[in-house]
Amino acid sequence: MTIAFQGEIGAYSEEAAHVLYEGASLMPCSTFAAVFKAVESGEADRGVIPIENSLFGSIHVNYDLMRAHTLRIVGEVHLRVRHYLLALQGVTPDQVRQVFSHPQALGQCETYLQTELPGAEAVPAYDTAGAARMIAREGRRAAAAIASRKAAEEYGLAVLAEGIESNHQNYTRFLSLARPADVQDRLPEGSMKTSIVYAQRENVPGGLFKSLSVFALRDIDLHKIESRPQVGSPGRYLFYLDLEGSVTDPNIRRALDHLEGLAAFVRVLGSYPQGAVVG
Amino acid sequence: MTIAFQGEIGAYSEEAAHVLYEGASLMPCSTFAAVFKAVESGEADRGVIPIENSLFGSIHVNYDLMRAHTLRIVGEVHLRVRHYLLALQGVTPDQVRQVFSHPQALGQCETYLQTELPGAEAVPAYDTAGAARMIAREGRRAAAAIASRKAAEEYGLAVLAEGIESNHQNYTRFLSLARPADVQDRLPEGSMKTSIVYAQRENVPGGLFKSLSVFALRDIDLHKIESRPQVGSPGRYLFYLDLEGSVTDPNIRRALDHLEGLAAFVRVLGSYPQGAVVG
Repeated sequence: MTIAFQGEIGAYSEEAAHVLYEGASLMPCSTFAAVFKAVESGEADRGVIPIENSLFGSIHVNYDLMRAHTLRIVGEVHLRVRHYLLALQGVTPDQVRQVFSHPQALGQCETYLQTELPGAEAVPAYDTAGAARMIAREGRRAAAAIASRKAAEEYGLAVLAEGIESNHQNYTRFLSLARPADVQDRLPEGSMKTSIVYAQRENVPGGLFKSLSVFALRDIDLHKIESRPQVGSPGRYLFYLDLEGSVTDPNIRRALDHLEGLAAFVRVLGSYPQGAVVG
Repeated sequence: MTIAFQGEIGAYSEEAAHVLYEGASLMPCSTFAAVFKAVESGEADRGVIPIENSLFGSIHVNYDLMRAHTLRIVGEVHLRVRHYLLALQGVTPDQVRQVFSHPQALGQCETYLQTELPGAEAVPAYDTAGAARMIAREGRRAAAAIASRKAAEEYGLAVLAEGIESNHQNYTRFLSLARPADVQDRLPEGSMKTSIVYAQRENVPGGLFKSLSVFALRDIDLHKIESRPQVGSPGRYLFYLDLEGSVTDPNIRRALDHLEGLAAFVRVLGSYPQGAVVG
């Protein structure tokens, strides 16, 4: 198996790919769009993409890519984002003059840096794994990077401190995508989830309520609901829903048929086993 | 009036503050938490914060800060994020060897940079406005920044190109916050919106449907709905809702009373005039 992901080796997406497909070959891609293309063309068997973060919300650009492509969701995992302070072997915290990372990671570790490394300068980098790689390749002994444990292993760096983020409730949900031809509709085994996107025919008060009735009347539980306004079309929304159950379940199938009668469009993104929380 | 916002002078948040409160004094803050503190302490009269972006979703950290503080939403605006290529006066594109900006902005303008400035190196910076300021202060003639038009004005830079982002459907919704003592509950004038956060008592199939019935039964339209999972508490969610109407409207008031009878908690974040789409 070859798994495409966005970012460098050592990125959090690589960690998610590793958790979902241990031992598979990994294909780093520079953009999310490149991940979709790699899977669609058959260069990769699966693509692993982040879809939402507990602090920063849904990644709509990846919902847009799912709508623009025909890939199907086949798995998910919730990965705790845990930041590590990494440096060359033998470097001590008092030697660190500069800390490199993505601005978001630097921001999440601001309190730690101010308290523990008050003399060090925070320097923005493209991504967390790239900061770790640069320090390893250039042999910078006066610098550290904020990145994942995976990046430490990958680039042979020492861990000076772990879990240095201020908010520990930082989780990213990743999805695994496959070509439809490579997916058989599995019978429900354990807890399954189905993700859909739909749009209402017209925006009327109670329209959302009516569309949700197709699930409530069949005792189908919802794991996610999110409206996304269509900018430039006031009153027009897309809805993202995650349902408990599989499309192979006749109850879900009937609810979706019912919804199709009410909606402007319904797109089933996939049915997959509910993912673990890792880290 | 003094308006607190997160970021530097020339940041997109400053532009939103300017659109909402033309002519007011501005107070740049280094963090979102500092914006809330500035308003709560009376140092600032209003705080302007981003709450969601059309490509990158809801900024949950600001919902968390709203729940942790007692400020009320008093206004909103949807600002188009339009990126400009800025340089010192007299610099031509062929002189540009480095382009500085926040990694997200660099990513959004990647196609433009590859096509129009193939020889230039993209260099990550903390924020878009900071990149513009650095170029102006250090007089860098071989560099450009990707930032807002406001940053060009603020730092006296020339606009080499405008609207260089690949996806033009990039809008950020900003909220304006005030101390409750500074807000009178206004009678509905024009279209008003009310934002609430609530949690269900228990997660049962159809629970969301039941809670939404309090609005559907009263023909109250929804502008936003979003579930946010409580990590570590499987099956527990917060719901963000934006309703059409004001808490001074008896129909809305009754619906919220009704919801309080069903929910573990309901928090009204504020009623405010529906904001314009700008840019």
